[in-house]
Amino acid sequence: MSLLVVGSVALDSIFTPFGETADALGGSAVFFSVAGAILHPVRVVGVVGSDYPMQELELLAPRGIDWSGVEHAAGESFRWKGKYSYDLQSRETLETRLGVFAAFQPKLPAHFRSSEFLFLGNIDPELQLGVLDQVPTAQLVACDTMNYWIQGKRDALMALLRRVDILMVNDSEARELSGDWNIHRAGRWILKHGPKRVVIKQGEYGALLMGGEQTFFTPAFPLEEVFDPTGAGDAFAGGFMAYLARSGAVSDVEFRRAMVYGSVMGSFAVSQFGINGFEGVTRDQVERRARAFRQLTHVELAEPLA
Amino acid sequence: MSLLVVGSVALDSIFTPFGETADALGGSAVFFSVAGAILHPVRVVGVVGSDYPMQELELLAPRGIDWSGVEHAAGESFRWKGKYSYDLQSRETLETRLGVFAAFQPKLPAHFRSSEFLFLGNIDPELQLGVLDQVPTAQLVACDTMNYWIQGKRDALMALLRRVDILMVNDSEARELSGDWNIHRAGRWILKHGPKRVVIKQGEYGALLMGGEQTFFTPAFPLEEVFDPTGAGDAFAGGFMAYLARSGAVSDVEFRRAMVYGSVMGSFAVSQFGINGFEGVTRDQVERRARAFRQLTHVELAEPLA
Repeated sequence: MSLLVVGSVALDSIFTPFGETADALGGSAVFFSVAGAILHPVRVVGVVGSDYPMQELELLAPRGIDWSGVEHAAGESFRWKGKYSYDLQSRETLETRLGVFAAFQPKLPAHFRSSEFLFLGNIDPELQLGVLDQVPTAQLVACDTMNYWIQGKRDALMALLRRVDILMVNDSEARELSGDWNIHRAGRWILKHGPKRVVIKQGEYGALLMGGEQTFFTPAFPLEEVFDPTGAGDAFAGGFMAYLARSGAVSDVEFRRAMVYGSVMGSFAVSQFGINGFEGVTRDQVERRARAFRQLTHVELAEPLA
Repeated sequence: MSLLVVGSVALDSIFTPFGETADALGGSAVFFSVAGAILHPVRVVGVVGSDYPMQELELLAPRGIDWSGVEHAAGESFRWKGKYSYDLQSRETLETRLGVFAAFQPKLPAHFRSSEFLFLGNIDPELQLGVLDQVPTAQLVACDTMNYWIQGKRDALMALLRRVDILMVNDSEARELSGDWNIHRAGRWILKHGPKRVVIKQGEYGALLMGGEQTFFTPAFPLEEVFDPTGAGDAFAGGFMAYLARSGAVSDVEFRRAMVYGSVMGSFAVSQFGINGFEGVTRDQVERRARAFRQLTHVELAEPLA
């Protein structure tokens, strides 16, 4: 199945206890596509300013990323500057400059409009709805959001939820959206408001899938070295959606597998700065890590105790 | 295998957003044994003051708990008073009165000294060592500890670690003990200092087992109603050790299963105040929940992607 993502194409400047980067490739659509393309080709819709290092993006194209939906606008590219705490558990946004992203009105190239699987990255829910209207034949639609939109564009967001199959958010977003601090009640609340499934990402602890017949949990991969959590959630989404697009099936069994491939991509994302963790990652490495993930939780119980 | 626990037998006064209890049965040995006894008989060593409601303890004996190692001392029983935040994520100790626990010198009844499986609950590591000396034939020894001992009795604690098979701690304790905030490095540090296995409890997120050939993770059970987290870690230990004592085998496979039964008991513990969550819980219910736990993480991957 063809897979399309719409989201930010940004330049990230990140400070961690282990070093820093300046104006590195980032943004939700970039992390999503770099992770996802290892499994399945990805089409990207976004916007960059005249200062964006397009040659760096183009170097990634042979991995299976179609950047032809990235609009070039006059002005500055979206920039985010953030600093992580010593234990990477919290981060502070030092600066956000929306630049050309502020006036972004996604227009899909004609050859993208028949995309079958669609991921609406974290942008204004009104724009997410606008994208959805341009892909009338989409078979599976997932979306992300953030507290900013939950607070400021709640009506549009709720309208969007009624039209998507999957909401992927982190735990604080799920809590804020539902008004319930219990993550399982929050998930159930979301399932009553449109999506058939919800994925709640819990950072270093893992991710939860609710919906269908089951609740499924996959822990984060046990990593002794974590360098940069930026983009882990988007990489998760990329692995998740690309696995499904490749499989073409959307059964409960396949969603469980998609959670594992999402987690695999999240684990590569945090292992280096920015998108560097995906440099040279092969499908074979992905498969080996997917099997290590399964082994991390696999248990066969004995016959019931008498 | 016979199973012995040494730990506190206390009276807890707990305030949560959902209600409060005063002078309720509590303490690590009580939670451990009430949870464990559902699977396998438990022998308890501890101390209570003259004010302890022994008839309430004795009512629990038919469940398979042998209280004959609980010493009766003149004075007040150990009391703990605590208050949880609205989301149960943090708690404040309002009062700790050690009472007779301050001068506790565990002496095991003769018929307890041949116990095969031993759990040293969170008491002074010098006392834990003293108990260990009284059970020379113990085949599997696990211990708990806390930040207070890590800071104040580090040498004794390190000596204890060289003599136990399993350390069971929560994540903040593992971090403090190892001096490393990365939980997987912290676990590896612990494994280099004596125990063959370490269980790191992560509260509402689950628990991690490191050692043997594998790292294994079990999430916490998805509960929409959590009333009182008090004792969940001790109940986990009780389920874990009682499963192993019942099985008698200590292979990697059995340790994984023990993690599931520990998690099952943790989930019953938090579902009501104090030990009430275990009221009427049958082995059949335990088995059903163990299978629900397995289903929560179970995934079979497809053939590797080509």
